Amino acid sequence: MKVFLKCLAKVKEATGHGAELIVLPECFNCPYDENYFTDFAEAIPGQSSNVLSNVAKENGIYLVGGSVVEKLDGKFYNTCTVWSPDGELVAKYQKAHPFDINIPGGTSFKESEFFSPGTSFATFDVFGFKIGLGICYDLRFAELAQVYARLGCHVIIYPGAFNMTTGPLHWELLQRIRAVDNQVYIASASLARDTSGPFIAWGHSTVVDPLGKILGTAQEKEDIVYCELDLKHVNKVRKMIPITFQRRTDLYDVVEGKTFISEEKS
Amino acid sequence: MKVFLKCLAKVKEATGHGAELIVLPECFNCPYDENYFTDFAEAIPGQSSNVLSNVAKENGIYLVGGSVVEKLDGKFYNTCTVWSPDGELVAKYQKAHPFDINIPGGTSFKESEFFSPGTSFATFDVFGFKIGLGICYDLRFAELAQVYARLGCHVIIYPGAFNMTTGPLHWELLQRIRAVDNQVYIASASLARDTSGPFIAWGHSTVVDPLGKILGTAQEKEDIVYCELDLKHVNKVRKMIPITFQRRTDLYDVVEGKTFISEEKS
Repeated sequence: MKVFLKCLAKVKEATGHGAELIVLPECFNCPYDENYFTDFAEAIPGQSSNVLSNVAKENGIYLVGGSVVEKLDGKFYNTCTVWSPDGELVAKYQKAHPFDINIPGGTSFKESEFFSPGTSFATFDVFGFKIGLGICYDLRFAELAQVYARLGCHVIIYPGAFNMTTGPLHWELLQRIRAVDNQVYIASASLARDTSGPFIAWGHSTVVDPLGKILGTAQEKEDIVYCELDLKHVNKVRKMIPITFQRRTDLYDVVEGKTFISEEKS
Repeated sequence: MKVFLKCLAKVKEATGHGAELIVLPECFNCPYDENYFTDFAEAIPGQSSNVLSNVAKENGIYLVGGSVVEKLDGKFYNTCTVWSPDGELVAKYQKAHPFDINIPGGTSFKESEFFSPGTSFATFDVFGFKIGLGICYDLRFAELAQVYARLGCHVIIYPGAFNMTTGPLHWELLQRIRAVDNQVYIASASLARDTSGPFIAWGHSTVVDPLGKILGTAQEKEDIVYCELDLKHVNKVRKMIPITFQRRTDLYDVVEGKTFISEEKS
């Protein structure tokens, strides 16, 4: 609860600086460790949902509530919720790619032993932007972002928590990859680095523009990144380097489920 | 012909240093300028093919012959040919994405006014590696590389020639993108920078490993990059960060033409 309260104080601070949409990190209210997941699991709506909803309303902002351990029909999900300034739930996304990885001498983790994978995409509309949601390891999967781009997203937000092996290796690069390939803004919010906790996060929440330029990066410790996103810039980049419109869908395509996405293209 | 001879001397030099597969840049025998394309256009096989075939044979190497202006059935293509140590044509690839771009205050070009786009993928097998081919602007299109990866490629080679606007912006980043997302080696060969010519290339031929690490970069002037590719490293990376096997093909897929690629997966 202490961490939760700290997050909420940061939301208030960011609101005071003019933020209109605020993103919390993955697993922001629970240590990212298998020994804690069961105790922190809850329904949506539930305790954390109520707090997030109230905080969004009190501050009059959109709040991307990082992720919580969701318990649903006897299964557990790593779930992101998004709350409107009215305190309404506007999107819910369950992490689709469990973090199952084994780097000898580095990191070993099998998230799928506890969490079930999500089975759908989630977008929401705000201030003229369409925004897609992913969580942490989802960043590595090009197709998730490609589907969001085909669905018309201008921004993809990834609450996350890369570790001390994969963080320096790929955290920033993957965000630039998704931004350049899809000509979207990428915004990530990472847990801060706490070397005394069970999981040591890389930190460095980041915002990247559609050209792959890093607009802002947090320190590894507790920090806030402020960035202004500009819809005109997205459209300008897409006009300048028109890959979004030059794809050879006669040769290849990215499909959602088993449906061709490109046919929805205007 | 002077440029051509210079290239061939470089092939001999690289062979002398132990190279077994050598890559020439896009449009290596013709200025990359619309005023020259018609004069330099030729059939495949034809004059350049004969020279490339002989050079591959004389040096006993695989030669990825950058690209030439191909004339075929009254149309022009930007075409890459690959030659075996026996002097046989082992692959031919016609650039699929014409470089049509308009960056205000930067670069403006419409390659499609002269060149027809290719309509197929091309791979070849050598030393246990499967290698896919793209040319320059093809680098920007994620799906081309994704299809090659699904077809089992370990390496994708892009002869290219980014310019002084797009080069510093994205040349290196795009190669790291394709490498990390597809867990393949990316090798590019660029024209050297010649500030007195009609087209000023960025240069910097590059080789990137499947983790996105830059193994070697040429200078902007005439130069050779030597790198050893290791199939075991490809397999190690794919085991370490198993995204190649964790894709959620129930949620999305990349397809070749209108055929689902993932069904060919072992």
